[in-house]
Amino acid sequence: MSSDADALIRQHRTATATLTVTRDGEPLAGQEVVVAQRSHEFLFGCTGFEFVPLANGELATAPEVGPDGVAGSLGEADAGRVERLADLWLDLFNFATLPFYWGRFEPERGRPDTHRLRETARWFAERGCLVKGHPLAWHTVSAEWLTELSNPEIVEAQLGRIRREVTDFAGVIDTWDVINEAVIMPIFDRYDNGLTRICRELGRIPLVRMVFDAAREANPTATLLLNDFDMSAAYECLVEGVLEAGIRIDALGLQSHMHQGYWGEEKTLAILDRFARYGLPIHFTETTLLSGQLMPADIVDLNDYQVSDWPSTPEGEERQADEIVRHYKTLLSHPSVRATTYWGMVDGGWLGAPGGFVRADGTPKPSYEALRSLVRDEWWVPPTPLGTDPHGRVGFTGFLGEYEVSTAGRTVTFRLDEPGPATVDVAL
Amino acid sequence: MSSDADALIRQHRTATATLTVTRDGEPLAGQEVVVAQRSHEFLFGCTGFEFVPLANGELATAPEVGPDGVAGSLGEADAGRVERLADLWLDLFNFATLPFYWGRFEPERGRPDTHRLRETARWFAERGCLVKGHPLAWHTVSAEWLTELSNPEIVEAQLGRIRREVTDFAGVIDTWDVINEAVIMPIFDRYDNGLTRICRELGRIPLVRMVFDAAREANPTATLLLNDFDMSAAYECLVEGVLEAGIRIDALGLQSHMHQGYWGEEKTLAILDRFARYGLPIHFTETTLLSGQLMPADIVDLNDYQVSDWPSTPEGEERQADEIVRHYKTLLSHPSVRATTYWGMVDGGWLGAPGGFVRADGTPKPSYEALRSLVRDEWWVPPTPLGTDPHGRVGFTGFLGEYEVSTAGRTVTFRLDEPGPATVDVAL
Repeated sequence: MSSDADALIRQHRTATATLTVTRDGEPLAGQEVVVAQRSHEFLFGCTGFEFVPLANGELATAPEVGPDGVAGSLGEADAGRVERLADLWLDLFNFATLPFYWGRFEPERGRPDTHRLRETARWFAERGCLVKGHPLAWHTVSAEWLTELSNPEIVEAQLGRIRREVTDFAGVIDTWDVINEAVIMPIFDRYDNGLTRICRELGRIPLVRMVFDAAREANPTATLLLNDFDMSAAYECLVEGVLEAGIRIDALGLQSHMHQGYWGEEKTLAILDRFARYGLPIHFTETTLLSGQLMPADIVDLNDYQVSDWPSTPEGEERQADEIVRHYKTLLSHPSVRATTYWGMVDGGWLGAPGGFVRADGTPKPSYEALRSLVRDEWWVPPTPLGTDPHGRVGFTGFLGEYEVSTAGRTVTFRLDEPGPATVDVAL
Repeated sequence: MSSDADALIRQHRTATATLTVTRDGEPLAGQEVVVAQRSHEFLFGCTGFEFVPLANGELATAPEVGPDGVAGSLGEADAGRVERLADLWLDLFNFATLPFYWGRFEPERGRPDTHRLRETARWFAERGCLVKGHPLAWHTVSAEWLTELSNPEIVEAQLGRIRREVTDFAGVIDTWDVINEAVIMPIFDRYDNGLTRICRELGRIPLVRMVFDAAREANPTATLLLNDFDMSAAYECLVEGVLEAGIRIDALGLQSHMHQGYWGEEKTLAILDRFARYGLPIHFTETTLLSGQLMPADIVDLNDYQVSDWPSTPEGEERQADEIVRHYKTLLSHPSVRATTYWGMVDGGWLGAPGGFVRADGTPKPSYEALRSLVRDEWWVPPTPLGTDPHGRVGFTGFLGEYEVSTAGRTVTFRLDEPGPATVDVAL
């Protein structure tokens, strides 16, 4: 499997470039140039929720100490610890997902948290990351005040909310999970909420059309995703219905919270093949792989699993590191996958699960080192000296992304965008 | 529950009629008339596969005796036994489903079993039954010779087959399960077959459109069903997609093989409510309730459960009778349900399960008597003498269906088609 995956990754993710270097219109023959990769085209993503306070200057610069003399835990008001976490984050990822859960973003109607989220999005963008907003419409963590409205008013509020956020963030966030978990939205029965009400009345496809139309109108160049956790035929049927109805979807989001165990290559590839049939780019969103005890298989709604303590263990960390490598190799081996988003850099996020790349104490786990060694080593071209031939040419094979070539203090950038042979002319 | 169901059944299934009887233009005042129900509007259905040999005169008229001196089992060449079964069938049901499984109907290309099926359909129609053909497109029991064709040829053969059957049977069979189990059709992976191939290539909705268009074109007045066993959100999503794509479905078929136990009122009503949202009549197709041991809950594909002997038991028969009453009451209490189809009158059909109303020896079970007492007693108006008032009027409440009113050797029929108050004028 793994050697197959490696070969497929080379096939789908690398270009074999012939670079012709000129200076003042003449081939730069017989010279040494240095080629180096600057970024990946593939989107290695992760949630960036922890960095909202940091990006907004809300953290104390010295560790805050509790009454018992112990420093606060990660994510609390300690700029230094969050900055170290940010360094780890930025060394691994180029794609950040920021939280737009309506119930938290606008708990009081008319007072959205726009400023703080925009500062955070800019913070990531300035560091070279693409930013995605998640989600614009979802029945979970939706605004409680919606339930006081009539259905037409809920629809208007939902569409207004989408237009506002997509407009307010255009240029900083141009990628959105427009609607989340529409498969169960109209039949969700755990508690009353505005989204389930309107989805039940309108039907899934008309609601999907409305929310995509609102987002598209607000930012015609945005990348708009349909996102779901349901990997069954239900999501296939929804996607087919949405596409047959003529609604344009830019990418399909497939969630992959694996709290009950790694899916393995076969299941993952089978899912990818089923959803690749629609010809859309796939974002493998919301990946979680645990480094501790797995959640029992009989839990259906993961939210039902509540434990007081869920530690990361040495054996769990080894297993997680192995599974991370297998999982990312599997994803990159499939040509439809355009992005991954890991769900939670640090342990103790959703459900308190040990699903991070970093322990609660801020130290990276083996999974962090394993993924870093793929992203920054195995799948990366470090600064590499190459001698040009008499025609000024050098050849090399590299992962798709942005590169630079330098000689004698001059540097030019270029991109490798398509797998396979590539010819690039650069004037240094 | 049951009293609620009874009240809802009265509300949705009965009319309170005021009958004005005239003779030669004058009210028939102060006379006795006899009102009697002739048929149900509700479709009480069952498979009628066993009666193909009977309707075609293929059975011996004397019991056939095997080499050990024991009479052959039911369904074998014994006209008397099958005729007794037919009497039981016709006393309970008014809606027959006949088998059009392509692989059995046309095992050799170009030699369809049209004549025998038409004789059988006529046999039922002459006995006052509506007849449905099942199914026109399905990946299971599809014709094996399809796998030797290219995908465009399979599509052409499938559509040609639909046009042929729907045309050949028009007037005798005007109700069709056009496509069966489209939810899993493109991802069915147990064996190669022509239908899965074309559904995977075309997508579910385009295939549904093609097969419905072909059937509709061949018989514009037919009642055309989409039928599925998948009661999850997947089928909802498929239905929504099909309807959003503008494909006209006349009724939704919901299978209900309950080999793993009766669903109960709550689950059944929840399913009905979810699928009633589309405003289509619902046929509760393929109902099975066992009078023996239940299939273990961990079986996913019911076909995987293979036992050599699966007896009907006294306790199982009592349970089945109780569940039959609860199930039929639940279905009739919901206004969207237009038809039920029980799957197998006699034990030992699909999977050898004891799911019939009749034991393998031909004797009716308690479930038979229980359903008969609903259909022909509790939900039925027997011949009832009523005295007309000075305006020639009599009043009565009856289940929707066809009635007759008689006096002095004259009989006129009339229908009660809508629940609630009804005024009917009859000239005797």
